[in-house]
Amino acid sequence: MAKKYNVAVVGATGVVGEEFLRILPERGFPLGSLKLIASQRSAGKKIAYGEDVLEVEALSPSSFEGCDLAFISATDEISREYAPIAAKAGAIVIDDSGVWRMDPEVPLVVPEINGDDVANHKGILAIPNCSTTPVVMTLWPLHQLNPVRRVIVATYQSVSGTGREAVEELEAESRASLAGEAVTPHVYPHRIDFNLIPEIGSWKEDGYTSEEMKLVNETRKIMHAPEIAIAATCVRVPVFVSHSAAVFAEFERPMALEQVWEVLGCAPGVVLQDDPQASLYPQPRAAAGTDPVYVGRIRRDISHPNGIAYWVVGDNLRKGAALNAIQIAEELIARSLI
Amino acid sequence: MAKKYNVAVVGATGVVGEEFLRILPERGFPLGSLKLIASQRSAGKKIAYGEDVLEVEALSPSSFEGCDLAFISATDEISREYAPIAAKAGAIVIDDSGVWRMDPEVPLVVPEINGDDVANHKGILAIPNCSTTPVVMTLWPLHQLNPVRRVIVATYQSVSGTGREAVEELEAESRASLAGEAVTPHVYPHRIDFNLIPEIGSWKEDGYTSEEMKLVNETRKIMHAPEIAIAATCVRVPVFVSHSAAVFAEFERPMALEQVWEVLGCAPGVVLQDDPQASLYPQPRAAAGTDPVYVGRIRRDISHPNGIAYWVVGDNLRKGAALNAIQIAEELIARSLI
Repeated sequence: MAKKYNVAVVGATGVVGEEFLRILPERGFPLGSLKLIASQRSAGKKIAYGEDVLEVEALSPSSFEGCDLAFISATDEISREYAPIAAKAGAIVIDDSGVWRMDPEVPLVVPEINGDDVANHKGILAIPNCSTTPVVMTLWPLHQLNPVRRVIVATYQSVSGTGREAVEELEAESRASLAGEAVTPHVYPHRIDFNLIPEIGSWKEDGYTSEEMKLVNETRKIMHAPEIAIAATCVRVPVFVSHSAAVFAEFERPMALEQVWEVLGCAPGVVLQDDPQASLYPQPRAAAGTDPVYVGRIRRDISHPNGIAYWVVGDNLRKGAALNAIQIAEELIARSLI
Repeated sequence: MAKKYNVAVVGATGVVGEEFLRILPERGFPLGSLKLIASQRSAGKKIAYGEDVLEVEALSPSSFEGCDLAFISATDEISREYAPIAAKAGAIVIDDSGVWRMDPEVPLVVPEINGDDVANHKGILAIPNCSTTPVVMTLWPLHQLNPVRRVIVATYQSVSGTGREAVEELEAESRASLAGEAVTPHVYPHRIDFNLIPEIGSWKEDGYTSEEMKLVNETRKIMHAPEIAIAATCVRVPVFVSHSAAVFAEFERPMALEQVWEVLGCAPGVVLQDDPQASLYPQPRAAAGTDPVYVGRIRRDISHPNGIAYWVVGDNLRKGAALNAIQIAEELIARSLI
């Protein structure tokens, strides 16, 4: 009989937590026990899982006893404190925060790209930030063919990347707006309904946001390509689910569009949606709730002889978070590393 | 006594037409008579203008008799047919369509940049497309200091750029969405509520849209700089008013950020909003209904030694359309060219 694994999900009541609980059974994950963990505030809440009803437990230092795997998707503070506790208790941690990703001891993994890196873990593995994943998933297959030299990215990121309270804020603000009522933002520094906010995360000294620098640094680490020049502008948009990005990539040599279509058309985890005349291209509404990263609007970057421009969209809660974390666990299992 | 001008506004009942009727009195435009012209469908409609009530007339070949100036902001078809008729009738036409802008006989003017070009008109002048204006308004002052070599732009464009029916569609779709009701798009090929549509205008053979190529070609024409390399991805976002853009510009030489702030801080028509720590940066909600082009998030493009990145927002109906057209008329008056 195949081995089964005792799993803890920290942040089980959040928007990413919900996706964990959907994706684990969808993929037939070999679950032994499943422990749902959240803040004290959510403790005692009952959540259906298949035919079972599970009770949410409050996070504590003893939460991880007997666990083989801990998926942590909460705040940076919780990951900083509890990932080492979970690892010490014997669980392999797959973490969704910004705390561990750039730690040289922590593999930062997108299985379709650098699945081999899982072997180097010392108890904690990290998934990339949700806006990095669709970009790196599409750059990597092209990079195999023709090295990427420079990338410019402008993102269009949904509010679910912030969490449930931001989803509720967009909904409440939109309702108020349509009713002609005043409304005060709480989650974001400004209203997000029918608006754009070019501020995601915290400010760095050079005028970039932490979100923009995650995209830069994580892409290089995942691709093992510290030499790639990258710049990004990250913008919050009034969309509930899925992050989108306009990408302009420069390669070592000119690249035929036919090659780009061919390579991205058969890249694992990537779906080509590129028939402009039929108005077929990736869109956040259509991508929400699905697994792939969608790419379209592929064309020459007419401003650079070796450039390609495209548009990429992916569900930030699935491939951008829970799905990628579960795929890392599957990678560990397939390699008998757990 | 200062001269007064008989003005016709074609498309008077549209979203840009409304702005003409707001901006003309705001600026104390020296109006003689004002003729409001629209389609047969809107003929007879009464519109208040100051203390007067004006009746909308149906567009016809005789509409322009006795007019000194005709502002046309309707469809490409109407501009193609009626701009020459109006010019022949003796009116100077200031046109907002895509038909005349790239005609070598037609000056394409943003007064803060190439006001001198108005002198070359042969009866028709054009304003740029609404997504071009904020980009070119910010590139131009920098270009004076250090020539622009290459520009990458990703736009975030509001639905009012399409017209009133698109504003109504975003509103109706948003209401339906929040009520959990089904809804079928009519104006756009897909739903725009809580979604993004990377298709604006028609498709060109090389995978670009007409909107993207307008940004490329118009920027070069206005700046008299055909050598600048430009690429753009234009995206419709669920915002009612104001177009935004993430810009990455490369210059001939490295550029100090202090210079960029200084130059853009005193550029005519441009307002610097750049205090990240205070969450001050341009936003479409705040820009809507105002005249300037707002620029912020100014920083080094960390992917290029001579690059600058920034974020720019402007009201697409005002500086992006009606205001710029009225400024061209003022330019003609100031130069005694009318």
